[in-house]
Amino acid sequence: MINIALLGFGNIGSGTVEVLTENRIQIERYVGCPVNIKYILDRRDFPDSPWKNRIIRNFDIILNDPEIKIVAEMLGGSHPAYEYTKAALMAGKHVVTPNKEVVAKFGAELLDIAAKNGVRYLFEGSVGGGIPIIRPLINDLAANGIISISGILNGTTNYILTRMGRDNIGYSEALGEAQALGYAEANPADDVSGADAARKIVILAALAFGKLVNPDTIHTEGITGITQEDIKTAAGFGCSIKLIAHTELVDGRVLAMVAPHFVGPENPLFGVNDVFNGILVAGDLIGRVMFYGPGAGRLPTASAVVADIADIAVNIGSSARKLHWDPAKRDEVADFGNYSCRFCFIFSDVPGSVDMLGRSFGSLGNVLREEGRIAFISEPMTEKEAGEKAAASGVSFIKRFRVL
Amino acid sequence: MINIALLGFGNIGSGTVEVLTENRIQIERYVGCPVNIKYILDRRDFPDSPWKNRIIRNFDIILNDPEIKIVAEMLGGSHPAYEYTKAALMAGKHVVTPNKEVVAKFGAELLDIAAKNGVRYLFEGSVGGGIPIIRPLINDLAANGIISISGILNGTTNYILTRMGRDNIGYSEALGEAQALGYAEANPADDVSGADAARKIVILAALAFGKLVNPDTIHTEGITGITQEDIKTAAGFGCSIKLIAHTELVDGRVLAMVAPHFVGPENPLFGVNDVFNGILVAGDLIGRVMFYGPGAGRLPTASAVVADIADIAVNIGSSARKLHWDPAKRDEVADFGNYSCRFCFIFSDVPGSVDMLGRSFGSLGNVLREEGRIAFISEPMTEKEAGEKAAASGVSFIKRFRVL
Repeated sequence: MINIALLGFGNIGSGTVEVLTENRIQIERYVGCPVNIKYILDRRDFPDSPWKNRIIRNFDIILNDPEIKIVAEMLGGSHPAYEYTKAALMAGKHVVTPNKEVVAKFGAELLDIAAKNGVRYLFEGSVGGGIPIIRPLINDLAANGIISISGILNGTTNYILTRMGRDNIGYSEALGEAQALGYAEANPADDVSGADAARKIVILAALAFGKLVNPDTIHTEGITGITQEDIKTAAGFGCSIKLIAHTELVDGRVLAMVAPHFVGPENPLFGVNDVFNGILVAGDLIGRVMFYGPGAGRLPTASAVVADIADIAVNIGSSARKLHWDPAKRDEVADFGNYSCRFCFIFSDVPGSVDMLGRSFGSLGNVLREEGRIAFISEPMTEKEAGEKAAASGVSFIKRFRVL
Repeated sequence: MINIALLGFGNIGSGTVEVLTENRIQIERYVGCPVNIKYILDRRDFPDSPWKNRIIRNFDIILNDPEIKIVAEMLGGSHPAYEYTKAALMAGKHVVTPNKEVVAKFGAELLDIAAKNGVRYLFEGSVGGGIPIIRPLINDLAANGIISISGILNGTTNYILTRMGRDNIGYSEALGEAQALGYAEANPADDVSGADAARKIVILAALAFGKLVNPDTIHTEGITGITQEDIKTAAGFGCSIKLIAHTELVDGRVLAMVAPHFVGPENPLFGVNDVFNGILVAGDLIGRVMFYGPGAGRLPTASAVVADIADIAVNIGSSARKLHWDPAKRDEVADFGNYSCRFCFIFSDVPGSVDMLGRSFGSLGNVLREEGRIAFISEPMTEKEAGEKAAASGVSFIKRFRVL
């Protein structure tokens, strides 16, 4: 029997209890022995729960119980999740979590502490909810040099953009719906600002390139400024607008960013709609593979948490490979100005605008003129060039979108 | 250092050598020590190859060399691949392979022999080429009860169907192109008959349900009978035609089948075009996840072979979980007649056909009449019912497609 402790009896925590109970036989067959929930840490009382006698409020009980081999941290937020994780690892307990905030900020340090203490720190649920992505990236693509990862990593914003694109409604209405359906939090700031996706992409970047970038420092654009006109412009080019989190190496340095992109139908992410997530990985051997599924939710996320628990349980005592990330130093992070991609530029359509833009950008290719706006898709250029050319054109610049 | 032997220096074999050489540093970092190709078994001479002094013709050299810990079988075909695999496992060597023929036919026995000899038999490359699917199914979805798996598992047929659907060309022309592009073999029988997909779906079924069904006994329809009229009928319902391999439990028994299906745009497999594969897994926790990517090819498949080698190398000496399949007994295999799904029925459009079909099928819903054909999509019914209703209608039956 393996004894575990759960930190947090909220949405994911109770989902994990449900999975460990309902699918007990399946899990026991995989692990080879029963997995016993010995403690559930929560500040609240659950007088009606069948688990009420496992619920404790004092984390030290877990820390000091040598029977507890695995701790599943599902508190959410950075504190005290980080402190509890650190203490558990230092006490020689394995830790699993879907907490992207902690992994994105403190992952390098926590992996280091885990390695030093001969235990593991797993976080499959921190990106893509129940979608298998982290273990496949580490193990199945082990022989590949990763070229880039582009993902739709936030279900709430994908739902909003899908509704705006498909059903012709505005941003506020779509957000209201997402909230009514329980996809978006009452305070959806982390979703719509791109902050949630930023945390996830730095985790994927660290897995791909070994360097953990501070998620607060990467270029992050959300979806709050996207209008119906933008959606129409995208459609005019056969594209839809998706909030894309992207990472690649630029001049050998890690680039990670989040921004709305135009995505064309030839890209597998084009078909990722509603609350679903999709993660497109380009490797030097496999070409492109995509992982698709529900990026959040109680049971999908619990599925990932329990997979981590099972992975540890089945490999306990074996010298599993240690994951190591370095915190990215300043000169290991790419200058965003050097990042290069195609852009859809949108300017005010004034007399002579095509000529003026042509002088600045060269051939504009297919030009879309609608409602006083003129839009075209450029050849690849750096962020710096994109800004300079737009300013030099003399035409009033409205906005630009990156094109995936 | 870990010494390995490769069986076969053909397409995948030479790709594996290339990967182990070109991405050596990456692989060594993962495994923790160098992976050395000590032998390459092939009947042919390679006088100009830098590997010529590793090439041997006598399998016994590998079998009797205690330094060889891992054998990668890339011979293709059942024999002598099966015999060599068995002998290697019995000699206490781990075996990895992308050989779906051997895994689909002899997987249960070989896994058993591996377990008895304390070694592992891995075959990530046998389904979906370089797409991570087998390890994620085993490990990442460990907590899930698998409900069903539906996949586009053969790139050649998907290319042909994509070309027929998108570019309005006939089956023979599309096949010729697939051959010219090197996607289809000179003898494409295993692809177009569905036999290749049948082998792959019984492997996935065994992973999902623990029972290995003989691939020669499952319902297998290929794509040779698909016409431009069928493609148009599908398009009339907003669908495309895909060769779908499907498995689920019917009355607790394993159902596995391969047949062309109508797939609508709400299904993630709808967007899987050209030579790409997609595998949609429904689990009781995760809902639906899809794995997408190149389903074949030299380097993608080698990527999977090397991932298996690395998995074994990194876990050598640890008691990794043993995989066990039972050969499916006769009464553990579902009666195909009891399999239930929606159908698109196509009949000859004769005077009174709508009334006659209505009497047999009840409400026909949206009816498509074109070029002397009448088509409609039914409610779910069993295969048996579908046949009976079509016969009882009195209208000349042309064909039916299952609807995913």
